[in-house]
Amino acid sequence: MDFFQCLSLEKAGNLIADSLAGIVVTNEIVDLSEALGRVVAEDIMAKEDLPPFCRSTVDGFAVRSADTFGANEGAPALFMISGEVVMGKGAMIKLQPGQAVVIPTGGMLPAGADAVVMLEYTEQHDASTLMVLKMVAPGENLVNKGDDIEAGAIIVMQGQKLAPQHIGALAACGWVFIPVFTRVEVAVLSTGDELVAIHEPLQSGQIRDVNSYALAAMLSEMGCVVKTMGIVKDKFNDFYHALSVALTTCQLVVISGGSSVGARDYTEKAISALGDPGVLIHGIAVKPGKPTIFGMVGSIPIFGLPGHPVAAMTVCQQLVKVAVRTLMGQKQAMSTFGVPAVLTRNLPSVPGRDDFINVRLGKLEGHYTATPILGKSGLISTMSDADGVVHIPAHISGLYHGEIVEVVLT
Amino acid sequence: MDFFQCLSLEKAGNLIADSLAGIVVTNEIVDLSEALGRVVAEDIMAKEDLPPFCRSTVDGFAVRSADTFGANEGAPALFMISGEVVMGKGAMIKLQPGQAVVIPTGGMLPAGADAVVMLEYTEQHDASTLMVLKMVAPGENLVNKGDDIEAGAIIVMQGQKLAPQHIGALAACGWVFIPVFTRVEVAVLSTGDELVAIHEPLQSGQIRDVNSYALAAMLSEMGCVVKTMGIVKDKFNDFYHALSVALTTCQLVVISGGSSVGARDYTEKAISALGDPGVLIHGIAVKPGKPTIFGMVGSIPIFGLPGHPVAAMTVCQQLVKVAVRTLMGQKQAMSTFGVPAVLTRNLPSVPGRDDFINVRLGKLEGHYTATPILGKSGLISTMSDADGVVHIPAHISGLYHGEIVEVVLT
Repeated sequence: MDFFQCLSLEKAGNLIADSLAGIVVTNEIVDLSEALGRVVAEDIMAKEDLPPFCRSTVDGFAVRSADTFGANEGAPALFMISGEVVMGKGAMIKLQPGQAVVIPTGGMLPAGADAVVMLEYTEQHDASTLMVLKMVAPGENLVNKGDDIEAGAIIVMQGQKLAPQHIGALAACGWVFIPVFTRVEVAVLSTGDELVAIHEPLQSGQIRDVNSYALAAMLSEMGCVVKTMGIVKDKFNDFYHALSVALTTCQLVVISGGSSVGARDYTEKAISALGDPGVLIHGIAVKPGKPTIFGMVGSIPIFGLPGHPVAAMTVCQQLVKVAVRTLMGQKQAMSTFGVPAVLTRNLPSVPGRDDFINVRLGKLEGHYTATPILGKSGLISTMSDADGVVHIPAHISGLYHGEIVEVVLT
Repeated sequence: MDFFQCLSLEKAGNLIADSLAGIVVTNEIVDLSEALGRVVAEDIMAKEDLPPFCRSTVDGFAVRSADTFGANEGAPALFMISGEVVMGKGAMIKLQPGQAVVIPTGGMLPAGADAVVMLEYTEQHDASTLMVLKMVAPGENLVNKGDDIEAGAIIVMQGQKLAPQHIGALAACGWVFIPVFTRVEVAVLSTGDELVAIHEPLQSGQIRDVNSYALAAMLSEMGCVVKTMGIVKDKFNDFYHALSVALTTCQLVVISGGSSVGARDYTEKAISALGDPGVLIHGIAVKPGKPTIFGMVGSIPIFGLPGHPVAAMTVCQQLVKVAVRTLMGQKQAMSTFGVPAVLTRNLPSVPGRDDFINVRLGKLEGHYTATPILGKSGLISTMSDADGVVHIPAHISGLYHGEIVEVVLT
């Protein structure tokens, strides 16, 4: 398979997104305490104003601001203390001119008041007499009803993956039950006659099934429910059977291995035999990751990733994630913010191919450095020792020592 | 409470880390499939070489490299095909001079061979005659036994939080049961007479208990097992009782609210009454977050966070995380890599105080912009609408429009 026959990373990503565009994602309702990391299934609106009443932001005295006009340390304004606002209670008192009411931080502003004087700018001579040493403006030291979130405003948009700050905003607005998209159930299969389960003793010529664990971990970090189906032998019948079971139980299938010529044929044949539209991608111009297969059986996407763990994980991060996000109903941009760092050596690359290089981060004279972890292709240690990945896009023929690159942390 | 009496963020972090330094963290054994996100309790070594044998990295023919000397398209080297390496089987054949053996990618190199010729550089005229069109060097297209990870090398160091690439490396080396530190059990309590549970109807002057949800979500993201204890009334006896229950069931207690003067007194008194060393921090020079309390009862750290959700979450991220990491046995540096962005307006700040400002990220002419979300202090929407946070350190008196700042994504 030649790189010229391979699809570019960008085209592959677009084709995957387009292929999944029509798939209906199902919803469920979860308790807010279970909603972290879930994707919201509809725009969620505030049912009431937040805060629900005008609150003081300081400990002090609620007053009519006009009554403080001209007050300063030399000529304080005099007030009569007419009561106290109790936390968590409605303010029953109505303030009359010249009156002040004790109010704690978060307390409800009494009717008639329009500002709060901080405790620090007052002096109290007896139980009922207050001297205010500083003018306050109308609205000073207050948060008005609805200042934070107005009734009817959207708190969280459909397609947002919920982070702690969104959970907080939903709690503040009294949302107990949250409509979210259901989690994607993904089947993970490894193929290869050389593979043994990790608890088995190794025979000559055998290696352990890394991808069942590494891909499961990566997919579970993305929010999927992972069903590990173990090792399938490189035989068409075994493979066809395993794949048909996976298709009945999951919304996404991720196979790894089978990137040798014969095994790749099995994978492609089994996908085609199980239904239309069949295989859509037969190789991508990505290093590592070239022998990647993508197909669909009905509405279920199937990835055939390379057997090399580093290649399998690279493609999982770059392309399987596109499918997972679409199936999860996630709408925010796929963020790949990187840490800028100075490259410590040249990195040649073939134009027309996207390269992903594992690097270690260092710090030198106040900036970060990115040092590529060299080693033969496919070495797991290049990835487990790395702090992040540098992407050399297809239109570039390499990066130079001293260039500033973006390191996406892993 | 004056900022001058407050501890700096840095000193507070150091004091917390020092206070927890002597605490013994317990271990448990988990299956590799459950180990994602857990912190490794000891250095984990490779018990055997990876790969466990010399493997081909291409589809082709195993040969003695010396036999290809001088070969080119005009003058190919002739070989006799003497067999085939089967995937997952030991290579039984011993290569004689002038012989070549068919080998797939990942196949075990037969004895006598020292290189592999790629299929693309060969021509096969009949079942047993091979022409090699290109010289290969000794070791070419091979990964040697132990090239990736040598037996005895450390795969993952004690204190490492396991990411998918570490799970992969452990699987590759046959580690099935992983020694990890036990998860930190944390009690989360909210205090405040104005608080009601999120499913309750609001009465006048009441607001909802945001922090039980927002802090639980944040602590669960950090890897804690969260026990939400709900709302405790601002009464010393209620508070003392709830805290003593929390101390018997958890390794860390996070209280929020009670930052009004009276409630803060309860918190401090209850901590002191329950045991030594008692309260260690009475306020920090951080905005938002000033009225933060930290203490210890025996070996259990207790945080009293401000009631304002934004302040509570800021301090949780900056200081509670220090305690969580220590109790989890985590040893990597606390990474706060930010995205560099151009600030779109001036941000004044008081020297001697660490400020945290929520910002939205934008993109302009190929670089990121950071736009502060303004609004009165404590508004939840400033946080739920943000992409990240800008930190103005204590030694700086503000940041200027056009300056490049680091935005830590939230």
